[in-house]
Amino acid sequence: MEIGSVSHEKAGCFTNGLMWFKSLPRRLFAKLVEIAKQTKKIGKDDPRRVIHSLKVGLALTLVSLFYYFQPLYNSFGVSAMWAIMTVVVVFEFSVGATLGKGLNRGMATLLAGALGVGAHYLASATGKVAEPILLGLFVFLQAFTSTFVRFFPQVKARYDYGMLIFILTFCLVSISGFRVDEIVDMAHQRLSTILIGASVCVIVSIFVCPVWAGEDLHKLVAQNIEKLGKFLEGFGEEISKSSEGEESKDAKTSLAEYKSVLNSKNAEEILANFARWEPGHGQFKYRHPWKQYLKIGSLTRQCACKVDALNGYINSEIKAPKEIKGMIKETTTKMSIESGKALKELARSVKTMTSPLSANKHVSNAKTAAKNLKSLLISGFSEDINLLEVIPVAAVASILTDIVICVEEIAESVNELASLAHFSSKETKVDSTKESNIEATQSRKIHACSQHVVITIQESAQVQSSVQLTDQNMKL
Amino acid sequence: MEIGSVSHEKAGCFTNGLMWFKSLPRRLFAKLVEIAKQTKKIGKDDPRRVIHSLKVGLALTLVSLFYYFQPLYNSFGVSAMWAIMTVVVVFEFSVGATLGKGLNRGMATLLAGALGVGAHYLASATGKVAEPILLGLFVFLQAFTSTFVRFFPQVKARYDYGMLIFILTFCLVSISGFRVDEIVDMAHQRLSTILIGASVCVIVSIFVCPVWAGEDLHKLVAQNIEKLGKFLEGFGEEISKSSEGEESKDAKTSLAEYKSVLNSKNAEEILANFARWEPGHGQFKYRHPWKQYLKIGSLTRQCACKVDALNGYINSEIKAPKEIKGMIKETTTKMSIESGKALKELARSVKTMTSPLSANKHVSNAKTAAKNLKSLLISGFSEDINLLEVIPVAAVASILTDIVICVEEIAESVNELASLAHFSSKETKVDSTKESNIEATQSRKIHACSQHVVITIQESAQVQSSVQLTDQNMKL
Repeated sequence: MEIGSVSHEKAGCFTNGLMWFKSLPRRLFAKLVEIAKQTKKIGKDDPRRVIHSLKVGLALTLVSLFYYFQPLYNSFGVSAMWAIMTVVVVFEFSVGATLGKGLNRGMATLLAGALGVGAHYLASATGKVAEPILLGLFVFLQAFTSTFVRFFPQVKARYDYGMLIFILTFCLVSISGFRVDEIVDMAHQRLSTILIGASVCVIVSIFVCPVWAGEDLHKLVAQNIEKLGKFLEGFGEEISKSSEGEESKDAKTSLAEYKSVLNSKNAEEILANFARWEPGHGQFKYRHPWKQYLKIGSLTRQCACKVDALNGYINSEIKAPKEIKGMIKETTTKMSIESGKALKELARSVKTMTSPLSANKHVSNAKTAAKNLKSLLISGFSEDINLLEVIPVAAVASILTDIVICVEEIAESVNELASLAHFSSKETKVDSTKESNIEATQSRKIHACSQHVVITIQESAQVQSSVQLTDQNMKL
Repeated sequence: MEIGSVSHEKAGCFTNGLMWFKSLPRRLFAKLVEIAKQTKKIGKDDPRRVIHSLKVGLALTLVSLFYYFQPLYNSFGVSAMWAIMTVVVVFEFSVGATLGKGLNRGMATLLAGALGVGAHYLASATGKVAEPILLGLFVFLQAFTSTFVRFFPQVKARYDYGMLIFILTFCLVSISGFRVDEIVDMAHQRLSTILIGASVCVIVSIFVCPVWAGEDLHKLVAQNIEKLGKFLEGFGEEISKSSEGEESKDAKTSLAEYKSVLNSKNAEEILANFARWEPGHGQFKYRHPWKQYLKIGSLTRQCACKVDALNGYINSEIKAPKEIKGMIKETTTKMSIESGKALKELARSVKTMTSPLSANKHVSNAKTAAKNLKSLLISGFSEDINLLEVIPVAAVASILTDIVICVEEIAESVNELASLAHFSSKETKVDSTKESNIEATQSRKIHACSQHVVITIQESAQVQSSVQLTDQNMKL
């Protein structure tokens, strides 16, 4: 019996193994199809990614010409390697990031090269025995100091990469001097190849379908405001419908778009950091007030936190007494819709860089509604009130009052941006067909996005701004 | 008159210039003092930073020995440069980050080196004319594909650096082959020096005062829960005091500590990513459930968003009618304090890795209080109610009810963590003197931190975990 069961087991194992092998091609094929689908999706979400990959290939091929052509190779030799290295490491997605890394690398190499040559001469003057000891000491001290300096927040934000290259170059130059005699020649060759590599990066990055971090930031901030605006408008409509019993589940899910605003802090800070490296382009001057975008972004997130609280009440059925509900409904609906309209106007104003005058009207409408609500509530109720049933209505009223204040603050900071960045004062007429087109594109995008969680920060920024950029890429 | 005023102006300019020059030393000195202060502060906030800088210096000095000793130099030659480069680029603050980068670099170099050699032989077989064209094509295709693959979220999260090194090594090896004949020798030398550099990094990183990303994540999550607990306890005390007229301004400002929880997403994700590279250490096994920490962190942030809403009412005077206020006060106070205690217990359970049984008692207390509140509210009021005055009370009650649900969810996920990570089931007795010591240290830290805004994420993670690690560093 025992032996029989063992042989049965063996036979089972064998069949399983056979099955596994048989199904292997099918599973491999399924995996391949999945990867192909994801590839298509990533390329479609932001076509600039495909273009970026082509640009990297172009820059690397350009730089590798140094190896193929005899006259170029004669003048640089093996140092041409540094040009390739620079291109691989410096070429980033946006112009600002590339420029920042390129400038950091160039300046750090120059400085550290000079210091390294100095350290070499100082050490070699002390004689053959003391030289390696002194060089080791220099390397240790320099590495210690530079690594510690990288912890300074100001340095970390803008010059982290420069500090890394500083440590690297200083070590390489000062130590190489111990073995190579033509240390100045070497430093010179290396510096010039790095400059060539960095220049190729910057030129390709700026002149072939440039991706501006500043533009991405500009659009991200405007879109975030718009998302909140859409939610508030939608919420207002939900309230006004709710008593009539008709509730659209679709509307509720599409309103959840605002959630991405809550975690936008990092993306905004990274983009603002890159934007500061960028030269003037399009509508943006060299010293565009990028910091003001961070301020607007921070206010938007505060507002989003309140909107999130409001969202808690959209899913719970509000069963307040009819008297109260009816009384408050009109004013709360107005507050919500007017706030939403104000935010959408503000978003449009930022997007088109025109004066946000029309938004102010909606803001004051919302404020009037808030005042009306207050006086309504003060008037009091004669009925016997079940406080538990009042709570949701009271909470919604309270949160909406806070939101109106928030919207006013956002409007103020957008006004500030308008005066800082000299937005044009004439109002652009809204082309209604165009606007509905944009909305259709966006809702399609939302549908595509809602199926997966966007993981990386930079990516989310790209996805969010991809809609506008599709058109731009078509032209190029 | 005109001439007179011009000469006056000139004299003014001159005096100004003189003043500027005279004040220069003073201002330089002031700047130096400021930098010295900041240096001291950065070192004091997290002494591990100083140790990290020393470790980088040590690793670089060790690797530079390859240049100084003739026998070592004979076997590697100029390739020793790659060891230095590897150390500079791979050495990171935590063990996980260093290991991740080191493994990425090693594997990518191996793979790309092999492919590069293959590409070289394939191209050279086609003859002298076609060789550079074919090589250029290979470089372009490889750079394009690899750059695009870097956009895949799964790749970006864990293998981004590896992809970068893959592009670099493939280009260098395949193109160098066009000029250097001993391409296999070169690839071999380069690979072995990179492996040596990476090993030095990993050894120094693990065996000299290691900084574990996993431990940082563990502490960060526990601290975030604790911060919310502290707020809720403090808030409960504020409510119970409020009717007695005594309000402590100090308490209000110290409660704002929870704000940092709102933006902790990024720090947690980065730390969890690094932690997955780390081997088992201390209480953490190799496959510790790091993902569960992210789940707890996400619930904690949801709770923090609600706490933020609650915080809006701590500053606004609540003028509800006495009857309602008195009735609700006791239960809301209990809800707030019990939730706070539950969170603090959960934080302690995570910190000490013991079973969170005692927290469950507080959670059920809070739930009972919430039920009581509900039945109190249902009983209704006979008085004429001014709804405007009821709103703050109603809102606080509503938010607190939500928070109790949130706390229950957090407790559930901590229980899940406890069973996944096999927390010890015996309860540790809380040593009261020790606990008060920790609190004193923390309040000192809060005081120090409140004066500046922490900018970078990684930094904030370090600051948050610095308290616990001070002791550890003292020992080493």
